[in-house]
Amino acid sequence: VIDLVQRLLSGDKRAISRAISLVEDDDASGWEIMKGIHPHSGRAHIIGVTGPPGVGKSTLVDALAGEYRKAGKTVGIVAIDPTSPFTGGALLGDRIRMQRASLDPGVFVRSLATRGKGGGVSAATGSTAKILDASGKEVVIIETAGAGQSEVEIMRHAHSVIVTLAPGLGDDIQAIKAGILEIADVFVVNKADLEGAARTAKDLESALELRSRGPWQPPVLLTVARDGRGVGELREELDEHLAYLKSGPGWSERQALAALAEVQDIVARRLVREVGGSDSWEEAAPQVKAVAGREKDPYTAADELIQQYIRRIRSQDPAGRE
Amino acid sequence: VIDLVQRLLSGDKRAISRAISLVEDDDASGWEIMKGIHPHSGRAHIIGVTGPPGVGKSTLVDALAGEYRKAGKTVGIVAIDPTSPFTGGALLGDRIRMQRASLDPGVFVRSLATRGKGGGVSAATGSTAKILDASGKEVVIIETAGAGQSEVEIMRHAHSVIVTLAPGLGDDIQAIKAGILEIADVFVVNKADLEGAARTAKDLESALELRSRGPWQPPVLLTVARDGRGVGELREELDEHLAYLKSGPGWSERQALAALAEVQDIVARRLVREVGGSDSWEEAAPQVKAVAGREKDPYTAADELIQQYIRRIRSQDPAGRE
Repeated sequence: VIDLVQRLLSGDKRAISRAISLVEDDDASGWEIMKGIHPHSGRAHIIGVTGPPGVGKSTLVDALAGEYRKAGKTVGIVAIDPTSPFTGGALLGDRIRMQRASLDPGVFVRSLATRGKGGGVSAATGSTAKILDASGKEVVIIETAGAGQSEVEIMRHAHSVIVTLAPGLGDDIQAIKAGILEIADVFVVNKADLEGAARTAKDLESALELRSRGPWQPPVLLTVARDGRGVGELREELDEHLAYLKSGPGWSERQALAALAEVQDIVARRLVREVGGSDSWEEAAPQVKAVAGREKDPYTAADELIQQYIRRIRSQDPAGRE
Repeated sequence: VIDLVQRLLSGDKRAISRAISLVEDDDASGWEIMKGIHPHSGRAHIIGVTGPPGVGKSTLVDALAGEYRKAGKTVGIVAIDPTSPFTGGALLGDRIRMQRASLDPGVFVRSLATRGKGGGVSAATGSTAKILDASGKEVVIIETAGAGQSEVEIMRHAHSVIVTLAPGLGDDIQAIKAGILEIADVFVVNKADLEGAARTAKDLESALELRSRGPWQPPVLLTVARDGRGVGELREELDEHLAYLKSGPGWSERQALAALAEVQDIVARRLVREVGGSDSWEEAAPQVKAVAGREKDPYTAADELIQQYIRRIRSQDPAGRE
């Protein structure tokens, strides 16, 4: 594992891939890797790209990565692509994206298909972004395929969030309902060569005026990701947002929140495992069965299991443990 | 609280509202309520409705509730409506939906705007559905406004999941990418009076043929929720799915998984609080700060905090605690 971490830190693509897989499996060697890379993380500019399906997010991410490459920066991409038995999920996604990315050694692309495992997609996204960051990628782009609650959670891992829309995607209220607008640092109306793009941008700007103004006012940009129009301006805005964050308390606030979430998540997973005796919670099966059968409520069952755990700790010889 | 639970169990609307708010706040009285209602829950048929924005989910839910009312059943609706500073979030949603629902005392509608609090939207949805179930609603419909990862998690609270699509919502691959197709028990192509509905249904059926066949093969139905066409058939399919679940292991499997998730969630929240000394984790601030500053990795910090917690437990007089 130490050797793997060394190779990863030097940017070795195979080591990066292997490390992400081990961390996805959420076992002891995954933890060792995350421990090993932690001191080397916290340097990349992490950018989130979200928005409803069909707005051209993947194309935009490709074009944006190209702009950063032109500026001499290395790029990592984390694409969140829920597994689907219909398409083969992430596999297909990787294949399509890799065709482009494999031509450029300065870009590393990883699709995440995992779900529900060890803290869910949001935790896996955070770990993957952190590995890419530690491997020396100067920009890490997280792309999600949706516009719901989980996207809001995933976007917490980003320093700068791009919310992407496109003209003609149903009425605006529907897009606004998705509830992701308030997390945007930059808005992009992609497919700006289509009819109605100016209208969509104008509607967005009116909606933004209703919002209480913070020190950073999210700009609304028009892009045609397919041929790269407007993507250079997008990169400039992102650089400005990064400078804004670093000039004020924003940067360290985000680092502190990320650290809190990460530590709490590890504590929760470890103690839940301890309380249930194992990942499968076999020791707790009678209590869980009683809850399912309505003979016991879940709060009482949780209390009993915690008390059992506390008794186990007390009965152990402290000298032998410490 | 005991009085509130009694009134809630008898179906009192104000008591139901109040109980949901207390549980959303995630404090001690919320826990007492959840304890009190647990033995009375587990009876309702919980139905999830999901799908991309713009397919007419709210209209479909209204029409479906009407069908159940015609069949003499009481209905509870949980609408997940992320807060947005632009629309006023759930408030607006409640107002629009309540206009209809308030005409019928047999329907209770609640919009959930909370996020991130005490286990997030998924936990709040589960608690709200459980309160409506215990209050005597025979059918509880959960409606989500999205098609991402969180919707998959939210839908775990449902016995029967309806995935709603509509013709002309961009290319099919985009809809499939959302990864929610595999959780469907019933597919609905709504707005079936629009061009392309038959095509969308056919594409779906072809995609389903590629899937390994389980004992329940999800049907694809056409509806026009606006005027109620096809919604009666949808209710019949849902009744069949419920009968299918109850005739096999499906029903008790879902109850057992729900119980496990609920107990683990309570254990995690209680112990995370204990380890950090409070909800705000003030006692753990130095460790979290060290993680943010990269002087310590999060696994080591979590370990140290857990060890501190264990020492605290051991140093307490067991006789005084038990």
